[in-house]
Amino acid sequence: MIDFNSYRNLLISDRTVRRFRQDKTVDTDTLLSLVELVRYCASGRNAQPLKYAVADTEDLCAKIFPHLKWAGYYKDWDGPEPGERPAAYLIQCLDTHYGPNCLCDDGLQLQAITLGAATLGLGCCIIKAFNAPALAEALGIPERYQPRYVLAIGHPAEQVKLEEMDGTDDADFKYFRTPDGTHHVPKRPLPQLIIPK
Amino acid sequence: MIDFNSYRNLLISDRTVRRFRQDKTVDTDTLLSLVELVRYCASGRNAQPLKYAVADTEDLCAKIFPHLKWAGYYKDWDGPEPGERPAAYLIQCLDTHYGPNCLCDDGLQLQAITLGAATLGLGCCIIKAFNAPALAEALGIPERYQPRYVLAIGHPAEQVKLEEMDGTDDADFKYFRTPDGTHHVPKRPLPQLIIPK
Repeated sequence: MIDFNSYRNLLISDRTVRRFRQDKTVDTDTLLSLVELVRYCASGRNAQPLKYAVADTEDLCAKIFPHLKWAGYYKDWDGPEPGERPAAYLIQCLDTHYGPNCLCDDGLQLQAITLGAATLGLGCCIIKAFNAPALAEALGIPERYQPRYVLAIGHPAEQVKLEEMDGTDDADFKYFRTPDGTHHVPKRPLPQLIIPK
Repeated sequence: MIDFNSYRNLLISDRTVRRFRQDKTVDTDTLLSLVELVRYCASGRNAQPLKYAVADTEDLCAKIFPHLKWAGYYKDWDGPEPGERPAAYLIQCLDTHYGPNCLCDDGLQLQAITLGAATLGLGCCIIKAFNAPALAEALGIPERYQPRYVLAIGHPAEQVKLEEMDGTDDADFKYFRTPDGTHHVPKRPLPQLIIPK
């Protein structure tokens, strides 16, 4: 069995990455094994309404990229350059056959997948800012499925460093990049996450 | 480092539990170490707007229980009896100081916590069906914080078994309990989670 500290270290290693080794592919079996993990997530009403479109080829990835927006705080950066783009994507879609929402299944499943990817040395970026109708059309996703999140996946090509935030309400939570290319992510200290009794 | 299969087994061991060993408490430090895990989750805009009220005493747990609904499919079961109720709760709240929503942070964080709990032999139940205003009032949670999910936590006192679902659109996804008290959870097969190209 995995102990708490090993698990915590895995979580710490599971960092959002926006620049990848595009030359290092992620094979279809690996992507399917990542999707398989979501079978073991809790699900509201146990309905399990989320389905995945798997983009495992250069051609499919090229169809997806133009519809994504990257790193809202980086006004002078339009996203990863050719050569550092994701080698694969999973498009998380709501199967509307099972109803109009998925409660928090979306996040439960994305966390399960990114942790699995981290065990394989892969990095992910959960993307909410994208043109869903255009993406669905580009990939030929039937209308029954609504794209909700895009998960970019690949071998990391950037350093990410966690930073301590000060614990005040108006502390700056924006991530930032230093001249050496490192992406820094401030995180709230534990006491600020607890509502006092 | 944790390998993929060990991680997958952890995920499989992390089952929703609705009956607990109420006599086995979960101490405050353990609950805080579970909340600490969410610092390492991805967060939309990195805003980290979710905060937690920690219920770590019999008295607090007794204030929470009446506001919860359990297992919607079990029409003849109102939830765990005295003696098998959760020994602790985390109330996940949106801190509205940071905006009106949290994207999928809720699920990301709940998955991170329940996996951490599983490494400690604890079981959880993610509860969405509860009276949020009444709960906030009972616990004296300030208006700034909106309760979004209740996470019940304790030492499991029931068996949970995963079951294979057939892969048809209208397969029955409802969980069920057998006379021996085991809770069975049908899960969709992998092929049904993949949107065909």
